[in-house]
Amino acid sequence: MTFAFDLQQTDGQARTGVLRTPRGEIRTPAFMPVGTAATVKALTCDQVRGAGADILLGNTYHLMLRPTAERVHRLGGLHTFMGWDRPILTDSGGFQVMSLSNIAKISEQAVTFRSHIDGSEHVLSPERSMEIQADLLGSDIVMQLDECAAYPADHDRANEAMLLSARWAARSKAAFGIRDSQALFGIVQGGVYGDLRAESAQRLVDMGFDGYAIGGLAVGEGHEMMVKTLALTTPHLPAHRPRYLMGVGKPLDLVESVALGVDMFDCVLPTRSGRHGQAWTWDGPLNIKNAKYAEDLTPLDANSACPASRDYTKAYLHHLFKANEILGQILLSWHNTAFFQELMQAMRTAIAQGEFNAFLAARRRQWRAGA
Amino acid sequence: MTFAFDLQQTDGQARTGVLRTPRGEIRTPAFMPVGTAATVKALTCDQVRGAGADILLGNTYHLMLRPTAERVHRLGGLHTFMGWDRPILTDSGGFQVMSLSNIAKISEQAVTFRSHIDGSEHVLSPERSMEIQADLLGSDIVMQLDECAAYPADHDRANEAMLLSARWAARSKAAFGIRDSQALFGIVQGGVYGDLRAESAQRLVDMGFDGYAIGGLAVGEGHEMMVKTLALTTPHLPAHRPRYLMGVGKPLDLVESVALGVDMFDCVLPTRSGRHGQAWTWDGPLNIKNAKYAEDLTPLDANSACPASRDYTKAYLHHLFKANEILGQILLSWHNTAFFQELMQAMRTAIAQGEFNAFLAARRRQWRAGA
Repeated sequence: MTFAFDLQQTDGQARTGVLRTPRGEIRTPAFMPVGTAATVKALTCDQVRGAGADILLGNTYHLMLRPTAERVHRLGGLHTFMGWDRPILTDSGGFQVMSLSNIAKISEQAVTFRSHIDGSEHVLSPERSMEIQADLLGSDIVMQLDECAAYPADHDRANEAMLLSARWAARSKAAFGIRDSQALFGIVQGGVYGDLRAESAQRLVDMGFDGYAIGGLAVGEGHEMMVKTLALTTPHLPAHRPRYLMGVGKPLDLVESVALGVDMFDCVLPTRSGRHGQAWTWDGPLNIKNAKYAEDLTPLDANSACPASRDYTKAYLHHLFKANEILGQILLSWHNTAFFQELMQAMRTAIAQGEFNAFLAARRRQWRAGA
Repeated sequence: MTFAFDLQQTDGQARTGVLRTPRGEIRTPAFMPVGTAATVKALTCDQVRGAGADILLGNTYHLMLRPTAERVHRLGGLHTFMGWDRPILTDSGGFQVMSLSNIAKISEQAVTFRSHIDGSEHVLSPERSMEIQADLLGSDIVMQLDECAAYPADHDRANEAMLLSARWAARSKAAFGIRDSQALFGIVQGGVYGDLRAESAQRLVDMGFDGYAIGGLAVGEGHEMMVKTLALTTPHLPAHRPRYLMGVGKPLDLVESVALGVDMFDCVLPTRSGRHGQAWTWDGPLNIKNAKYAEDLTPLDANSACPASRDYTKAYLHHLFKANEILGQILLSWHNTAFFQELMQAMRTAIAQGEFNAFLAARRRQWRAGA
């Protein structure tokens, strides 16, 4: 396995390191911008890389439906197709099948669903998910197929989904096989129940994965419950493997999760917020459409190296959104993507310098009111 | 006047030169991307400049309504507001008042209209247009207020609009006054009638403007009639002043117009086409949504210096449009903007080398079928 995870420094439970992959290094804690349909929405790959991202996430569900995994494969794989030559992590498709497709039926064998685009029927099994991610898309980090029980789920339901996920983890691992240049992550499930999280983690660790994801959070349980569940989960994961909290989150979520030992994140928030006029900053979030920005000549962040953050006034961004101009969506998506990367860099630096507790306290003070 | 027009080479009626302005040189023949609402739609100023544009066009009508000319002025003028430090030409607002506003009444004094955004009433006179363009927006090249008769217009109607435009030219010039660092262009009207075009040109030349625009074309008369009318107009304009054909056009329109001595153009076509999936190329236009591009691994133009033209396959662009991704609109707008600039550069080179006739013949052969 050419995926070495070098843990360089810890500060309490927080960790910083480097995940080395054949396509380049991923500095951790890392935030992965989401490239749903083979594009980080409204941004070029150069802008995403320039913002500091080491790795992107691609969505198996979207890509298998359009343009189809087979077509991406014929066109050279996902990296070549979208023009991103650094690492890509793909999700398994399972979560989005449940949240986006028209009809979904889960059996022991597979998920059967109809496309939200054209109603066509598809089957996603652990084996098919491995084929799509590893062989057709050519992902660097492949996720097992799992079942994420809808929130709220009682202990029985959460247990059932956790056990199915564990059986699918074994099938995913068997189908993935031994690969030199691709990694496979297992996914811890178990809802908000500490005993299930512990059991899920133990089952996965016993099988042995290149990294461990924490799924089934940020699905409606709220920030406090998420952090509490996370605290019951990370202690059961091996220190020498990367830990990835899926689908998270807001800046304060990221900081609190890093404090509990998480190494990797992904979320559509930076780009989705950006398209709707919300900018995330060190001072918290702001809605650029608010009238108070109409003649504000300051940029979103004068100290940022990102052109979108530094070179445009809030007044101009306000105008672009009021006039429904695409450039507004571009610039705020770009700014937010850069801000999230700057936040990760600040955490990496704070951990390396043994100052993460002070960083955490400052962020809590400033952001607890809603950021 | 610091606007020197250095005519460097002619080839038949075609001309190439440089219009020197305090904010930089404009190589002619020049195509001005349109920055309607203080943004060339879907592009950053860096991308527009990188594509080769020396000058942008701003729309007085849009800007006076939103964010308002007074606000742009308070925010530092249009260049500072939108982050473009090179020359800007603004139209007078008259044409878009007639085509976009809800109610328009033209009197000898002014145009009265209601905003298409909020129904508010506004008055645009020659004097107010000068104030907006020259004083509030801070345009480098200011256009007189004119009346463009709706097509088709009979001789009487065209004459009436031409004469009003001439009186408004005089008032525009008086209101503009003497300025060192801004230029004022008159606008030739007269419909498709050679006698009216000649009279209009003579009236403007007698007043003396820094440049001469040709208005009232590309309003429905078709390519042949446009070229015919243009041929009856340019001979009446002084050789030592720039000539600007407003709102034109498709690539073949540009080539045919340069052949008749036009120096400057503007059109929304590159960006509007781009947002709808149409790419303009040396081989003619293509619709990237066409199924035949689904697995086409060639770029739009491998020889272009523009990343959008060179670094993305048609298959990827096709996918982006099928998936309604903003990046598709960005990349095709960018490509088209670059292609139009490359076309202008090719014409400048052909004229400088005395080979414009061959260039024109080749373009006619290839593009007459609809490009």
